[in-house]
Amino acid sequence: MSMIKNITNVRGITCWGAHTGVKSMRRDLAIIYSEVPAAAAAVFTQNKVRAEPVEISEKHVNLNNRAQVIVCNAGNANACTGEQGRQGAEAMVKTTAELLNIPKEDVIVASTGLIGEPFPTEDVVKGIEENIHKLSDNTKAGSFVANAILTTDTFAKEGFVEFEHDGIRINMGGVAKGSGMIHPNMATMLGFVVTDLDIDEKLLDKALRYSVDRSFNMITVDGDTSTNDMVAVLANGLAGNKKISSEKDPGYIIFREKLNEILTHLAKLIVSDGEGASKFIEYKVSKARSAENARKLVRAISDSTLVKTAMFGRDPNWGRIIAACGNAGINFNYKKVNLFVGDKDKLVQVLEKGQPMDFDKNFVKKLLRDSHIRVNLELNTGQESGMGWGTDLTTDYVMFNSVYTT
Amino acid sequence: MSMIKNITNVRGITCWGAHTGVKSMRRDLAIIYSEVPAAAAAVFTQNKVRAEPVEISEKHVNLNNRAQVIVCNAGNANACTGEQGRQGAEAMVKTTAELLNIPKEDVIVASTGLIGEPFPTEDVVKGIEENIHKLSDNTKAGSFVANAILTTDTFAKEGFVEFEHDGIRINMGGVAKGSGMIHPNMATMLGFVVTDLDIDEKLLDKALRYSVDRSFNMITVDGDTSTNDMVAVLANGLAGNKKISSEKDPGYIIFREKLNEILTHLAKLIVSDGEGASKFIEYKVSKARSAENARKLVRAISDSTLVKTAMFGRDPNWGRIIAACGNAGINFNYKKVNLFVGDKDKLVQVLEKGQPMDFDKNFVKKLLRDSHIRVNLELNTGQESGMGWGTDLTTDYVMFNSVYTT
Repeated sequence: MSMIKNITNVRGITCWGAHTGVKSMRRDLAIIYSEVPAAAAAVFTQNKVRAEPVEISEKHVNLNNRAQVIVCNAGNANACTGEQGRQGAEAMVKTTAELLNIPKEDVIVASTGLIGEPFPTEDVVKGIEENIHKLSDNTKAGSFVANAILTTDTFAKEGFVEFEHDGIRINMGGVAKGSGMIHPNMATMLGFVVTDLDIDEKLLDKALRYSVDRSFNMITVDGDTSTNDMVAVLANGLAGNKKISSEKDPGYIIFREKLNEILTHLAKLIVSDGEGASKFIEYKVSKARSAENARKLVRAISDSTLVKTAMFGRDPNWGRIIAACGNAGINFNYKKVNLFVGDKDKLVQVLEKGQPMDFDKNFVKKLLRDSHIRVNLELNTGQESGMGWGTDLTTDYVMFNSVYTT
Repeated sequence: MSMIKNITNVRGITCWGAHTGVKSMRRDLAIIYSEVPAAAAAVFTQNKVRAEPVEISEKHVNLNNRAQVIVCNAGNANACTGEQGRQGAEAMVKTTAELLNIPKEDVIVASTGLIGEPFPTEDVVKGIEENIHKLSDNTKAGSFVANAILTTDTFAKEGFVEFEHDGIRINMGGVAKGSGMIHPNMATMLGFVVTDLDIDEKLLDKALRYSVDRSFNMITVDGDTSTNDMVAVLANGLAGNKKISSEKDPGYIIFREKLNEILTHLAKLIVSDGEGASKFIEYKVSKARSAENARKLVRAISDSTLVKTAMFGRDPNWGRIIAACGNAGINFNYKKVNLFVGDKDKLVQVLEKGQPMDFDKNFVKKLLRDSHIRVNLELNTGQESGMGWGTDLTTDYVMFNSVYTT
C-alpha cells in the first residue's frame, strides 16, 4: 500500500477539493473526474431512509454501469430534505455535467453532513462552477479530495495500490470518510475508488460487492447504516490492458484481491478514527463451515455492547463472546470452540472446546492494555474463515454522543 | 395490579425461597409448587448457547404441556458446564420429583447466575432436600421466592392480578428477575406465572406467546438474549371454572389480556432495575400497517445505541430516531411520520410528516430531564400500534460493565 501516490496517479484521473463555505474553514466539495467515460459500480446504504443523492446516483449507475465524474459535498447530508433537497442534488448533477460537457447520467453525486437541514444549493452549485476548472492530476489535488469529504473525521483516509496485469502496471487509488465510533447524527461512510484497469462493467460490480462484504461490511460503526452510505468505483480502462471480461481471467482474481486490499485498508482507517474508542480490535473466526457463517459470527461479536465494554475494561470475558455468538442467527456449537485473545503480537488461549483454560488472567489483562487487540475464535467445524474490525465501547463514547445537540 | 397479594394467593400454590450457600448471605433457591398437576406453557431463550436446565425444561413442557413444580437456583447459571452441569440439572429434577412424589417430567427446572463455573450440585440438592417441607401459602413465602431468583437485580419483582370469569374470581400471580442494563455476564431474564384458571394447554401456550411478544420481547436489555432466559406459566384449574377450550370463549380474551398485563408489569420492572440507566423510556409506534411492523420499529429505536446516548444527553435527536427506523428491516416512509417526545405528562411534536417542527428545544430538553420519558411515532400508514420499554445508555453503564471481571 503506497502512501505517497494517490488517486491522481491513476491514468486519466483529475480531481479537486474546494472550500465553498457550507463548512467554515474546511474544504467541503470534492470532484473526481475521469478524462474518458469509465465502467462504474456502486453499493448504497441499506437504510430505508435514503438521502437524495443516493437515489439519484443509484439510478445513474444502474442505467448503463458507466460514469465519468463523482461530485460530493460535505457539511449537509441532503437527507430528509424533501423536494428542496432533491432539486439541490439535481442542480449539483446538472451543473457538473454541463461544465464538463458530459451526460447527466454519467455523474455520481454524494453528500455527507447534517441531516434534515435545508440543502445549501446555491453555495454548492457556485462551488462547482468556481472550482471545476481547477481539476488537476497533482498529488496535492488528491489530498484535497480526501480532506473535502470529511465531517467528524479527525484525519483524511487515502489508499493506493498498483499491480501488474497483461504486462502493464495497473494503478488504483481510493479515498474514504467515516468515523469509527463518534458519529453525531449518523455520520456517513463514503468510499470512492478509481483505477485505470479495463474491465467489464458486470465484473467490476461483482468484484466490488465481493470486496465490500469483506471490508466495509465487516467494520462496526454502532451496527447502524446511515442515510448516505455509498461506495463507488470507476475503472476507465486507460491502462490499455486487454479488457478483463471473464471471472476466469487471472487478471480478475488479482484485481479483486487488490480492490479488497484497498477497501480493507480504508475500512480499517475508519475504525481507527474512533475518537471515543480506546482500542482497535481485530476479530477472526476460523475453521468455520462457510465464510459467510464466519463473517456473521464476527459481526455478532464485534457489535455486542457487552463484548465492547469488556474490551474497554481489558477483560477477556469469554462468556460474553460465546453468548454473542449464540445470537448470531446461525447454528453454533460452543462445545467445539477454541478462543484466543491478546494484543497484536501475542495470543493466549482462554477456551478449549468450550471449556475455560487455566490461563494467567493478569498476563492477559496486561496484553489487553494494548491499543490494538485481537480476538480469534476457532469453530472446528470446517475450513473457512472471516475477519472484521471494531472498537471498544468507552465512557468517552457515551459522553461525546450525548452532548451532541440536534 | 395488587401489590399485597402474590403467587401464594393463587389456589393450590405453595412455595419457598431458601438460602443454600451458593450465594453468600442471600436466598438462592426457589420452589413453586401446585397441589395438582397444571397445564404448563413456556418460552425459552433464542440464544443458540443454552443452559442445561433450559434443555431439560423445554423437553418436559413439550412432552405433555403439563407440570407441577418449578425449581430454580440462583448464583450459578449451569451454562457451558458440560456433562457435569447436565447431571446437576438432572439431580435437581430427580430430587424435587422424588420428594414431592411426582413424575420427573412434571418438573420445570431453571438456573441463573455465573456461566461456565462448575455447577454446585451438592449444595443445590441439599438445599432442595432441606427446604421442600417448608412449602407454604403464606405471603412471606411468595416474597422469598421473588428474592431467591435474583442475581444482580436491586429489587424483587412481583405482580398479581385477579379477574372474574364464569362467575368465579380467578387469581394470577408472577415473579420475575432481570436487570435492565447492568448484566455482567449476561444476567438472565426469568418469569414465572401461576394461575388457578382452568384452561386448555394449547390455549395457554398461545396466550403466553401472544403476551411475551408484547411484554418481555418488547424490553431492551442490550439487544441480547442470555443462555438461560425462560418464561413459564402454570394454570392448575383449581378455580373450578368451566374449562376454557376455545379462542372464542370471552374468558380466553380476558385471560390473555390479564396475562399480558402481568407480564408487561414484570417486564417494565426489569427495565426499571437498570442501575447504570438514568431513564425509563416508553416507546410507542402507532398508525402502522401492522402491529408486528410497529413492534419491529419500537425494537429498532429502543435498541439503537445512538438513540440511547441521545436520551442520556436529553437530546430530542429526531435524526437518530428516523435512521434507526430505517434500519428496522421493514418498509418505512419517513415522509409520513409525526414524532413526539416528552416526559410522562407532556409530549411535544418535533416532526410533522418527516419535517422538523419549529419547537422550543430548551423546553423539550427540560422535559427530557425527567427519569420517565416517552417517544411516540405516528406512521400514518394504518391503524395498528406497538409499545416497548427501554433505558438510556450512560457512562455509568459502560463503567459497570467494563469493571466486571471473568
